[in-house]
Amino acid sequence: MDLDNIRIVLVNTSHPGNIGGVARAMKNMGLSRLYLVEPRQFPHEEADWRAASAGDVLQSAVVTPTLEEAIGDCQFVVGTSARERRIPWPLLDPRQCAQRMASASSQQQVAVLFGREDRGLTNEELKLCNLHLHVPTSEAYSSLNLAMAVQIVCYELRMLQAQPVLPRSEDDQWDTPFTSVENMERFYVHLEQTLTDIEFLDPAAPRQLMSRLRRLYSRVRLDEMELNILRGILTETQKWVARANKSR
Amino acid sequence: MDLDNIRIVLVNTSHPGNIGGVARAMKNMGLSRLYLVEPRQFPHEEADWRAASAGDVLQSAVVTPTLEEAIGDCQFVVGTSARERRIPWPLLDPRQCAQRMASASSQQQVAVLFGREDRGLTNEELKLCNLHLHVPTSEAYSSLNLAMAVQIVCYELRMLQAQPVLPRSEDDQWDTPFTSVENMERFYVHLEQTLTDIEFLDPAAPRQLMSRLRRLYSRVRLDEMELNILRGILTETQKWVARANKSR
Repeated sequence: MDLDNIRIVLVNTSHPGNIGGVARAMKNMGLSRLYLVEPRQFPHEEADWRAASAGDVLQSAVVTPTLEEAIGDCQFVVGTSARERRIPWPLLDPRQCAQRMASASSQQQVAVLFGREDRGLTNEELKLCNLHLHVPTSEAYSSLNLAMAVQIVCYELRMLQAQPVLPRSEDDQWDTPFTSVENMERFYVHLEQTLTDIEFLDPAAPRQLMSRLRRLYSRVRLDEMELNILRGILTETQKWVARANKSR
Repeated sequence: MDLDNIRIVLVNTSHPGNIGGVARAMKNMGLSRLYLVEPRQFPHEEADWRAASAGDVLQSAVVTPTLEEAIGDCQFVVGTSARERRIPWPLLDPRQCAQRMASASSQQQVAVLFGREDRGLTNEELKLCNLHLHVPTSEAYSSLNLAMAVQIVCYELRMLQAQPVLPRSEDDQWDTPFTSVENMERFYVHLEQTLTDIEFLDPAAPRQLMSRLRRLYSRVRLDEMELNILRGILTETQKWVARANKSR
């Protein structure tokens, strides 16, 4: 996988702000090669503003008058498509597509095409592609912002490079409701007071004790029964401290 | 999985445009519950503009003065974090986190917290969370736009609902270079001419013949040797047509 062999190609973009948003999305995920086919306004201050610290991606962007010039040397071309077509083309979701692009990018030039904000790529443009990519969306509102679509595709490429983290066990079979944030906060107040009472915690030098305890209980996620048990223990402990202080 | 039990919580957002971008990203992916903790400017016309057709998400957004009020009734809270912390918290990537949220959302209230544009969530806010979520980014530029981060998390939730599409075979073991777009376009010109020559294609009524042939060759992806073979066949075919016409 070589992200430097993958270019993002924007066709006839209307809003320069979207070009800036795309540049930032690319750089955040480690991509740098931006091609602009007949952008309506470029360069533009709105693009610079939205790009934030990705101005270098804008500055090295290649502007071409036709799509063919932007992708003529590519061996693998992916087109993003929102529409059902009369003749269905091979259509993959961003995750599957990223795997295909990543594997092709080791030895080939790869392009991903994104169309106009209002009507995407034309049928003629889509016919230039080896694969079509479709981002799954809600039927209630399926029109993604251009920069968002680029972000999702670049994110999927990044995920292929990122270190895997060990998965954690699930809790859908739990027999008691998990407790709420409010209840946990009351518990932490109670816990901190009790630890102070027993002089395990010195309020003048608390160090990271409460942080470590919060991390512990956040990680396990207490259910309501467990929380009641712990608070019962704290209450009983405080009674013993009170008794001991009385008999001093 | 119930997306209606998952809320997006934005803490102290500075730019109203980002709030609008978040609303659109949510609705595109089928989420609707937006909470705003002390937004700097809201409502605001920039938010409306960026929300596009997601104005309903903005209108039903819940504005609260404190984070505790936004998440007090939640049983599962995820905080987005860009930073390394002194005491590492359980940290998952968006994909793993989406699985945890989706499974919890069947019976519990779930919140995902996103912090300020310039400095994220505070340590105190992160301590309220059961899990921390980190979007993998490039070391060269790790600061994601707020709405982009929300888009990625909502996209991962959507992907869990979307129909899987059959994966396709890979081509990394190929023995000959794949051909380029330019060569394919020359081939299609040659093919169409030949089909016209042999009177298989009627230019006055072409129907979808060329579209179907383009789909076929795009799908298989020709290597340079295969392309040479096909063009050789076309050239030979045209010779036979020429001979036949001469002898008429």
